[in-house]
Amino acid sequence: MCRFIAYSGDTTFMNTLIFDASNSLVQQSKKAKMRVNPLNGDGFGIGWYPEHGDSIPGTFVSIEPAWSNRNLSQIATKIPTQNFFAHVRDASVGMPVSQSNCHPFQYGPYLWMHNGRLDQFSRFRRIILNDLSDQAFDFIKGNTDSECAFAIFLDEINFDKTAPLEKLQQAMKSTVRRINNYRLQVNANTNAFMNFAITNGKESLFTRYSSRTDTRPASLFYRQSKHDIIVSSEPLSDIKEDWTKIERSTLISIKNNNVVIEALID
Amino acid sequence: MCRFIAYSGDTTFMNTLIFDASNSLVQQSKKAKMRVNPLNGDGFGIGWYPEHGDSIPGTFVSIEPAWSNRNLSQIATKIPTQNFFAHVRDASVGMPVSQSNCHPFQYGPYLWMHNGRLDQFSRFRRIILNDLSDQAFDFIKGNTDSECAFAIFLDEINFDKTAPLEKLQQAMKSTVRRINNYRLQVNANTNAFMNFAITNGKESLFTRYSSRTDTRPASLFYRQSKHDIIVSSEPLSDIKEDWTKIERSTLISIKNNNVVIEALID
Amino acid sequence: MCRFIAYSGDTTFMNTLIFDASNSLVQQSKKAKMRVNPLNGDGFGIGWYPEHGDSIPGTFVSIEPAWSNRNLSQIATKIPTQNFFAHVRDASVGMPVSQSNCHPFQYGPYLWMHNGRLDQFSRFRRIILNDLSDQAFDFIKGNTDSECAFAIFLDEINFDKTAPLEKLQQAMKSTVRRINNYRLQVNANTNAFMNFAITNGKESLFTRYSSRTDTRPASLFYRQSKHDIIVSSEPLSDIKEDWTKIERSTLISIKNNNVVIEALID
Amino acid sequence: MCRFIAYSGDTTFMNTLIFDASNSLVQQSKKAKMRVNPLNGDGFGIGWYPEHGDSIPGTFVSIEPAWSNRNLSQIATKIPTQNFFAHVRDASVGMPVSQSNCHPFQYGPYLWMHNGRLDQFSRFRRIILNDLSDQAFDFIKGNTDSECAFAIFLDEINFDKTAPLEKLQQAMKSTVRRINNYRLQVNANTNAFMNFAITNGKESLFTRYSSRTDTRPASLFYRQSKHDIIVSSEPLSDIKEDWTKIERSTLISIKNNNVVIEALID
Repeated sequence: MCRFIAYSGDTTFMNTLIFDASNSLVQQSKKAKMRVNPLNGDGFGIGWYPEHGDSIPGTFVSIEPAWSNRNLSQIATKIPTQNFFAHVRDASVGMPVSQSNCHPFQYGPYLWMHNGRLDQFSRFRRIILNDLSDQAFDFIKGNTDSECAFAIFLDEINFDKTAPLEKLQQAMKSTVRRINNYRLQVNANTNAFMNFAITNGKESLFTRYSSRTDTRPASLFYRQSKHDIIVSSEPLSDIKEDWTKIERSTLISIKNNNVVIEALID
Repeated sequence: MCRFIAYSGDTTFMNTLIFDASNSLVQQSKKAKMRVNPLNGDGFGIGWYPEHGDSIPGTFVSIEPAWSNRNLSQIATKIPTQNFFAHVRDASVGMPVSQSNCHPFQYGPYLWMHNGRLDQFSRFRRIILNDLSDQAFDFIKGNTDSECAFAIFLDEINFDKTAPLEKLQQAMKSTVRRINNYRLQVNANTNAFMNFAITNGKESLFTRYSSRTDTRPASLFYRQSKHDIIVSSEPLSDIKEDWTKIERSTLISIKNNNVVIEALID
Repeated sequence: MCRFIAYSGDTTFMNTLIFDASNSLVQQSKKAKMRVNPLNGDGFGIGWYPEHGDSIPGTFVSIEPAWSNRNLSQIATKIPTQNFFAHVRDASVGMPVSQSNCHPFQYGPYLWMHNGRLDQFSRFRRIILNDLSDQAFDFIKGNTDSECAFAIFLDEINFDKTAPLEKLQQAMKSTVRRINNYRLQVNANTNAFMNFAITNGKESLFTRYSSRTDTRPASLFYRQSKHDIIVSSEPLSDIKEDWTKIERSTLISIKNNNVVIEALID
Repeated sequence: MCRFIAYSGDTTFMNTLIFDASNSLVQQSKKAKMRVNPLNGDGFGIGWYPEHGDSIPGTFVSIEPAWSNRNLSQIATKIPTQNFFAHVRDASVGMPVSQSNCHPFQYGPYLWMHNGRLDQFSRFRRIILNDLSDQAFDFIKGNTDSECAFAIFLDEINFDKTAPLEKLQQAMKSTVRRINNYRLQVNANTNAFMNFAITNGKESLFTRYSSRTDTRPASLFYRQSKHDIIVSSEPLSDIKEDWTKIERSTLISIKNNNVVIEALID
């Protein structure tokens, strides 16, 4: 079910969180602590917003494990940024390991990640696809439930590259609601794990959610300091009190180093 | 627009055609003679029928160029076979270079290759997909027009793994006809290059076709000997008289070392 | 420190041991039981002897993890063989993950694998290399201690492609002895883990050895039946009594389904 | 024999030269104009000096062709730099296509590229290696003549990370001279093509040289403007008069937008 981190704050280099932290993302790619299956070795991806005023993020993805990719260690050490996403993948059974399936997914200024899995996705995938606009349909390049969820989100904001925060929040709620509706249409009553993350480089939104109330959602934490906010599938350090657990069925929004928490009603 | 070869006959090793021939497939991957753009370096694939009575072919595909792939040279030298397909890809602009987009595509006992391009495919792709059965829709893993054509073909034979030759021939004709209809629906009046190849390990079918009568289809040749038949985008040797050019708008069927040629009416 | 398996016996397909066994090699690539670090995700390799009387094995190696490589599952299912080696790698710190560093290494009819690590190898690597014949020196393409050990072995048999079993046994002992000598020259008194495997397709030799008597060597087991012998870093099944633990400082030789065990004196 | 470009000047993005120029490096990877074999599809590499005052360049290398690598297009578009190297490789026969063999090679603040080939390298490779310091010997990770030449160079400057320009110039001359001497020791009297490039981010040196006076060296050009200097295997634009051909047996040094040309005496 993957692991991810998101950073916004003062200029930093990605390696601090991807490689250097005691429970870094690379560490989690080999041995995640909060998962039954600790391995996230089916590729990785990063997306960063350049310092020089380019609003379109750069991305770097690979089907190789994060731990052995020498290009990742170079790029993570050499590019200054104030906002980045990073993701290590544990492919669902039957899902190809390909670059098109690596997170983060990108559209214009947006980056999207998913930590989770829509159970029985293959049973309602075509229903989702039929429901998409042509633009959203054509946007999809890979095979994942995660990218489908992003396509729904993009339809919800009408592919608006300058959507305000409120619209992003509404779209996130609608995305979760629509996925639940698609599940119901085929009686897919096992769980949908929907920890989603989106950013436009200035504002970032995260959900922690599982469809079934008897199933614990995937873990999600954040750490806020004067200089930055990190949202992460697992605490990146051993100092437990630095990290706030995000409650289930929650939407959190980050802007200007502020965290706003609200219920994610389904 | 790719290059391909197909072999059926006495037991051989794939390297004879992929590496050793004077105009081998690897040579064509670097410097095809009968194309404006001579380069086919966007991955490759092979599919072979094992000698030991397994009717399901093995496949090996890669996004690396054929010329530098050391695994290809190993596999092509070590596996005896009486029937194989091999393909080197020149990705259409905007099409990802990924394993899911490498030919040959496989379903049960069938292998499928395409040398060509459906112009303006993005304009009628969704129409094709909507027209597919659920099984054909779910079959598609990549982004290519080639795999979509195979999905149409599989629908035409109802995914029958033991379809007789006549059914395969009908399905091939229907596939070409349906693609032309999809094009018409969106007024895509530029060309569709449809050199298709299918085999079940015993019987093989090939088309040479272009939708527009004023446009020459991609090249296609065959060489028949007492021991085998080779169908290839280009002659593999310099002995011109060994190779028969396949005329345009033709469907050729190969079975028991016999070649049957018929018109491919659209 | 990697995991490996070696098979010799009746014709089989590699997938039975690589994928299907309850503690298959792919399972060990994700979650080895008998290692502190359970992950062997830094590439893999297989080498097999073809059925058709070709004495030179084929190899297939990749820097991708074994668990997600679709070509591996194809090849392992489609090629019949009576003798094969397979290896999943856990790269030592600082060692590049590259095809040249993937096991098994091959020379003529021989395949070589190593499960272990020569501690402080960088301190005596140049001494080894200086001691090699030109042929052995030029043979080395990668960076590993494992390939260096194979080069020593090849020098010990004078690159003889038809060396008899006794010569192979002597060479194996000399290889271990020489490596210990090189270590001594630089006072590398930490351990050298030397579980080596070599085969010519008919005869196979294995060592279980660690230089320091206070350090347990890497695990090694075998299972003998009427039909085949499997040597493996870990038992491949849960039926413990089927598997015989190979004692430390042992050289075992397999020929015609017989196992000969002798002391590996250092 | 590869193609390369080197840029120094005002802040730019690498894509302008790698992708956008009419005869861009990617164009040269598919269809170089000034080579008998126009294809440079055996991997690529870039090295850039970050804007934020980090004197150690970042590198990104891949064994995939430059033309289809989506990460390259991302990185080249998003990282501002005042100095970068970029290289597309045509592997010499028998040389593995691996990341360790991709240019540019890096040591501390230095980047090194080679466009050329030392004929009969395998005959004097061990002589070179024996002549290297331990540090230079251990520095080598791959199999190329190019990296060996860099190791010689690094020995010539005693691995000094702050060597002044004069020392770099002397070292470049000595490197060429030593390689010629090694060739003579084994009577390798075919040619050595030695177009080398080195930079420390502030100063850059280039040679155009072939050992045999009857053999034309690989092509090399530069274009100087008020804002930048580009050195390139081929002119990157069609405006011929913008590009100055570098004469054979020449060492050119670039510093503060000045070009100094001197004879490279052998």
